[in-house]
Amino acid sequence: MTIDKNKRTLTSSGFHVSQDAPVNTDNPIPTPEAPAPDVLRVAYMEIQVTDLAASREFYVDILGLHVTYEDDKEIYLRSAEEFIHHNLVLKQGDVAAVGAFSYRVRSPEDVDKAEAFYTELGCRVERRADGFVRGIGDSVRVEDPLGFPYEFFYDVDHVERLAWRYDLHIPGELVRLDHFNQVTPDVPRAARYMQDLGFRITEEISDSDGTVYAAWMRRKPTVHDTAMTGGDGPRMHHVAFATHEKHNILAICDKLGALRRSDAIERGPGRHGVSNAFYLYLRDPDGHRVEIYTQDYWTGDPDNPVVSWDVHDNQRRDWWGTPVVPSWYTDASLVLDLDGKPQEVVERTEEKEMDVTIGADGFSYTRADDDEDMPDWKKGEFKLGHQL
Amino acid sequence: MTIDKNKRTLTSSGFHVSQDAPVNTDNPIPTPEAPAPDVLRVAYMEIQVTDLAASREFYVDILGLHVTYEDDKEIYLRSAEEFIHHNLVLKQGDVAAVGAFSYRVRSPEDVDKAEAFYTELGCRVERRADGFVRGIGDSVRVEDPLGFPYEFFYDVDHVERLAWRYDLHIPGELVRLDHFNQVTPDVPRAARYMQDLGFRITEEISDSDGTVYAAWMRRKPTVHDTAMTGGDGPRMHHVAFATHEKHNILAICDKLGALRRSDAIERGPGRHGVSNAFYLYLRDPDGHRVEIYTQDYWTGDPDNPVVSWDVHDNQRRDWWGTPVVPSWYTDASLVLDLDGKPQEVVERTEEKEMDVTIGADGFSYTRADDDEDMPDWKKGEFKLGHQL
Amino acid sequence: MTIDKNKRTLTSSGFHVSQDAPVNTDNPIPTPEAPAPDVLRVAYMEIQVTDLAASREFYVDILGLHVTYEDDKEIYLRSAEEFIHHNLVLKQGDVAAVGAFSYRVRSPEDVDKAEAFYTELGCRVERRADGFVRGIGDSVRVEDPLGFPYEFFYDVDHVERLAWRYDLHIPGELVRLDHFNQVTPDVPRAARYMQDLGFRITEEISDSDGTVYAAWMRRKPTVHDTAMTGGDGPRMHHVAFATHEKHNILAICDKLGALRRSDAIERGPGRHGVSNAFYLYLRDPDGHRVEIYTQDYWTGDPDNPVVSWDVHDNQRRDWWGTPVVPSWYTDASLVLDLDGKPQEVVERTEEKEMDVTIGADGFSYTRADDDEDMPDWKKGEFKLGHQL
Amino acid sequence: MTIDKNKRTLTSSGFHVSQDAPVNTDNPIPTPEAPAPDVLRVAYMEIQVTDLAASREFYVDILGLHVTYEDDKEIYLRSAEEFIHHNLVLKQGDVAAVGAFSYRVRSPEDVDKAEAFYTELGCRVERRADGFVRGIGDSVRVEDPLGFPYEFFYDVDHVERLAWRYDLHIPGELVRLDHFNQVTPDVPRAARYMQDLGFRITEEISDSDGTVYAAWMRRKPTVHDTAMTGGDGPRMHHVAFATHEKHNILAICDKLGALRRSDAIERGPGRHGVSNAFYLYLRDPDGHRVEIYTQDYWTGDPDNPVVSWDVHDNQRRDWWGTPVVPSWYTDASLVLDLDGKPQEVVERTEEKEMDVTIGADGFSYTRADDDEDMPDWKKGEFKLGHQL
Repeated sequence: MTIDKNKRTLTSSGFHVSQDAPVNTDNPIPTPEAPAPDVLRVAYMEIQVTDLAASREFYVDILGLHVTYEDDKEIYLRSAEEFIHHNLVLKQGDVAAVGAFSYRVRSPEDVDKAEAFYTELGCRVERRADGFVRGIGDSVRVEDPLGFPYEFFYDVDHVERLAWRYDLHIPGELVRLDHFNQVTPDVPRAARYMQDLGFRITEEISDSDGTVYAAWMRRKPTVHDTAMTGGDGPRMHHVAFATHEKHNILAICDKLGALRRSDAIERGPGRHGVSNAFYLYLRDPDGHRVEIYTQDYWTGDPDNPVVSWDVHDNQRRDWWGTPVVPSWYTDASLVLDLDGKPQEVVERTEEKEMDVTIGADGFSYTRADDDEDMPDWKKGEFKLGHQL
Repeated sequence: MTIDKNKRTLTSSGFHVSQDAPVNTDNPIPTPEAPAPDVLRVAYMEIQVTDLAASREFYVDILGLHVTYEDDKEIYLRSAEEFIHHNLVLKQGDVAAVGAFSYRVRSPEDVDKAEAFYTELGCRVERRADGFVRGIGDSVRVEDPLGFPYEFFYDVDHVERLAWRYDLHIPGELVRLDHFNQVTPDVPRAARYMQDLGFRITEEISDSDGTVYAAWMRRKPTVHDTAMTGGDGPRMHHVAFATHEKHNILAICDKLGALRRSDAIERGPGRHGVSNAFYLYLRDPDGHRVEIYTQDYWTGDPDNPVVSWDVHDNQRRDWWGTPVVPSWYTDASLVLDLDGKPQEVVERTEEKEMDVTIGADGFSYTRADDDEDMPDWKKGEFKLGHQL
Repeated sequence: MTIDKNKRTLTSSGFHVSQDAPVNTDNPIPTPEAPAPDVLRVAYMEIQVTDLAASREFYVDILGLHVTYEDDKEIYLRSAEEFIHHNLVLKQGDVAAVGAFSYRVRSPEDVDKAEAFYTELGCRVERRADGFVRGIGDSVRVEDPLGFPYEFFYDVDHVERLAWRYDLHIPGELVRLDHFNQVTPDVPRAARYMQDLGFRITEEISDSDGTVYAAWMRRKPTVHDTAMTGGDGPRMHHVAFATHEKHNILAICDKLGALRRSDAIERGPGRHGVSNAFYLYLRDPDGHRVEIYTQDYWTGDPDNPVVSWDVHDNQRRDWWGTPVVPSWYTDASLVLDLDGKPQEVVERTEEKEMDVTIGADGFSYTRADDDEDMPDWKKGEFKLGHQL
Repeated sequence: MTIDKNKRTLTSSGFHVSQDAPVNTDNPIPTPEAPAPDVLRVAYMEIQVTDLAASREFYVDILGLHVTYEDDKEIYLRSAEEFIHHNLVLKQGDVAAVGAFSYRVRSPEDVDKAEAFYTELGCRVERRADGFVRGIGDSVRVEDPLGFPYEFFYDVDHVERLAWRYDLHIPGELVRLDHFNQVTPDVPRAARYMQDLGFRITEEISDSDGTVYAAWMRRKPTVHDTAMTGGDGPRMHHVAFATHEKHNILAICDKLGALRRSDAIERGPGRHGVSNAFYLYLRDPDGHRVEIYTQDYWTGDPDNPVVSWDVHDNQRRDWWGTPVVPSWYTDASLVLDLDGKPQEVVERTEEKEMDVTIGADGFSYTRADDDEDMPDWKKGEFKLGHQL
């Protein structure tokens, strides 16, 4: 019954738990001597879109995010339970790309710490006392060691929390920004840097050779504030909003069907293995991926067990074993540098998750010790494609 | 606003409605002069299974159907709101196949009518005053003109309705038997015969050439008691049970994942276009397909509009446009004749739905007037397979 | 396990079932020789309201019913899955009252039958080939033997079913008109007349002395199209709309709270004992009572067991034992005669349910054989009031 | 749109928000110079019960908590997502009372800090290296300045998280321990001490005279880890577990009805104003109150707005305005001192919430500026009682 904390333990659910994440790197980014800022939580993403009206239709008319401010160049949006100015900024631009992954820190002094931390890392750092966007004050933006545009701020305008305003809620109401997900070639290297920044790993996918395919990490006590997904990067894999219940997520699908926009649904709805959350992936008019997510678990204890999934376990990404569509593995959004130019994308050199699971040389199982082949309906489209 | 009943009308949801189903046949089964029995509703299916213990685990331990009677040869099961003896009979046998599609009729006299109706049709007919299975009295079984083993009865034992026994309900509780689905080569011919039997068409899938791919038909005022799916037949496509809410269906998936039996999930969960119901398709240990289904609509008015779907509309079978897995189109269960021998399967000669939609020469659209190709994630595995 | 149909059987849920409802009268309304019309289902209610704008806000802006037609005198509304012209007509008038309880019959000839049936009963009968309201053709309205304005029609305009229009649905979407509920002094007398009209009793509340407090009766195969509630009448107790799921009902409460109109919530939400449905009672701006209701059970078999509840069982009206508020027992809407004048209300002379259960001389129990007093929180406000 | 953080702001939902809780005391408990321990979260409650078998039936068979350990003297229970040894300890005893309110701290050193903090406060303090209960190591228990038995520990056995074990989940599955609620005579005094202990106030109920009726306070970033409810104390008002969705809570009610134990339901289900959570209050076989709770909001930002409710707002405790039953205000459980003797209960001298809202001299409103009386069904049983 009791779990030995000193060991890696196979659970009755098919994954392992351990105290330390088996995510190690031979090629670390040096740990700064400057203390990391105390990151509170994921706060907002700034996204550049190529047709602001089309994006407004998607995020406001369909997804029901609430407008804090808008003009003909940019739109500031928030979820129903948010009290800070925004969780998403849409900016009209020439290229579909992400302008900032923004975190709130615990105090004004933590903005100073962020500046020192990244300066010591040799990153390009820019600080603006009046902020880079509306509603937010003193901020630091950096091109981080992985090439992502990270922002840290404390000072922010407050707006009314619409949690009790049920008259304004739609059937698929989004209540919180939940997390980011980033694509980067070397997951252990990225994870080590994020740990230096104060993040803790909660779950990861790897194989028996020690290749790590993805890792989830958190500051707030949920499964993640961000995740590192192995692939060509730096790119943005998705930004995720939470609903209260599963039917809210189904309602988004139903609405997209009613609007004859079901092709915006890329993957799901389904139940994740990783995080145990119920999920849906959408693609916005520019192809930016948005996840809708609900009901992961508390991770706030310092000795919270790290969950390790075998990359060949076909319930790791979908607990129901539904095949992951290839685009979900391959597509992601560009990210911008501090001048607004897209960062160059570097190829992942390690094995790719899609190749080792549903590719010609890959394999997946539902039961680890089961020699039977998976039924056809679980093999996924990519496998069939390769086989022919 | 008002719909002209005399016309075929395109709705704002993308399908057409009309008073009469556009399902016509040049090759009808002759209409008997004997009046059809008054069929009340779908009552139970008798299924032959090759490993009764494995089937019990699936239907009782996992799906939570309630046992009315069992011994080492057969198990009688019912859903939570049923008051008649059973909705499903599992019989140990050598071959996985369906022994009976059973309907309840309105009165004892309707059993006589069923006997006369099928006798006039020249079908093999067998009547047993004590019934063919436990709990049911005077019954007629026939090999119907399409080759299916149909049963009609009125007399049945009553058992306690467990609707209020929430202490016995599981998260995925099945509350009613909802419908059958049958595979038959010639859908219009089958539909015409079923109309003679008193069924009414509620929805159908066809193309502009007049090929009918499937038709849904009802006696009780829901979308169907049974459907005719075009394909090699006679075969049983699925038997469907209803839950109260959508989360009950999701709970079945979650449980299968927890038991590491997610490979029993073949398709879904999703929202049907046809019927507007929320659905899930499972495969039992013998490969028999079971649908879990909830929330279709009232069809009991005599002038209930018939819904016609274009076979190329990729929201017809899944409102979210999720590709149908090929096995769902190709696999089905054998059916038995009255001697317990499998009926020979006859090939469909008309176009097949899978071929015209996701096959090499097929196509599907999300928006009828949209020339854009569907995104890759909507094309489905079979399409990719053929393209390579 | 098997239930003897010839006996009255105590179920494991605490109520009895039997084949015939124990609802008998010494004072029957004579059964006409003319055959009853074949009533299909409850179709719409016509309600007179004193402030049409306030009613519109309630039924359209808050409850989200869809407008088929409106002008400054009347508003025609329908639920999301309806394909006939309307389920509710609001008419501006001087007095808050019900103008018609309208049923759809199976054929045009059934309108003739209704006319003959009520003519033979000696009722005031009025027939209009062009209907009494918009959207509906040839209709009969009567002042029925109980004093209620009943309508029967077949011919009706069709409108678009909005079942698939999820873009128009609100969190508390109403999908069907479910039933009426009428207050009348003598329930057995009323039930006998309704049985002559072709209705079947599905459930009833009575005591060991044979006093019947309420009876539910159906044409469509749900628990009811209407119910007779014992009390001063003729009055309209409520009109009920169905949602798909329970959370839809909770969403209505949440929205009323957000609009600071929670005082429109009179009773519930809760789970009924009778019908096993999840429910909520609201009061519209004129005090007309509206129920929101979901998930009762199939009753369409001719031998569907009748459920009998002991009036002292405190789970009969709320399965969770939540006390019924006194207003729910005492308040109801006036009904109009065919001239639009309110019908005189006749007092019930038999025992009243409120008096025998929570009144000074009444009692209720959670467990029939339990001598313990109910805890205070289950006794209800009225009991406390009387005790002091 | 933007809220001025320096002001107390009336929101569109009817309550006020401000940066600092308007909860001040003239009679503070002295703030220790020793630093407070870093409390992580509410961890478990130890409850003494008078019939262990009856309690097991309630908590295990009905509520479905998972047994970590049991013998004939005590039972250790946990919720589905918990990874520490237990969230509830039931101990057989002579008196129904609470033995410990236990918090987990961030590190072993924080146990030392807790010891020093309470020693400086002059409280009785007991430390045991092997813990007071199974599964937990080095712990401090104190009789806190308010008379409550508080415990602090870091070292704890790990057990398997059953989050993914859907095969073990019931329809009303409890997934987390959410919070405690304590009754104490002087809420501002208690709140000030809890702030010294590092808790932050998230919401409170008060009146225009400055009387504070209740305050909610948190360490983890939800609305509370505990709340102080004004009344005769020290007593335990309730312990609360969380479910994922609202229907899980309804399922608990349905099951209690099925078991004919609906009298265990004291109040709800309903939507709280305070916390915006969906709730239900039960009473266990000893009368200990258990809340089931879901979907409050993120409070983890240091400048999270404090919500202030007017005690006369009848949506403060139930957003739907459902009257609070008197027992909920008056009943609570005794708490034990470190010798296992019940603490003496001291009377509240300030105004009581029940008296000022539904008592003879009290009043409540749905709309602050509305002179209309609430309808009878909103007045509540106590009001009626007093009026007669």
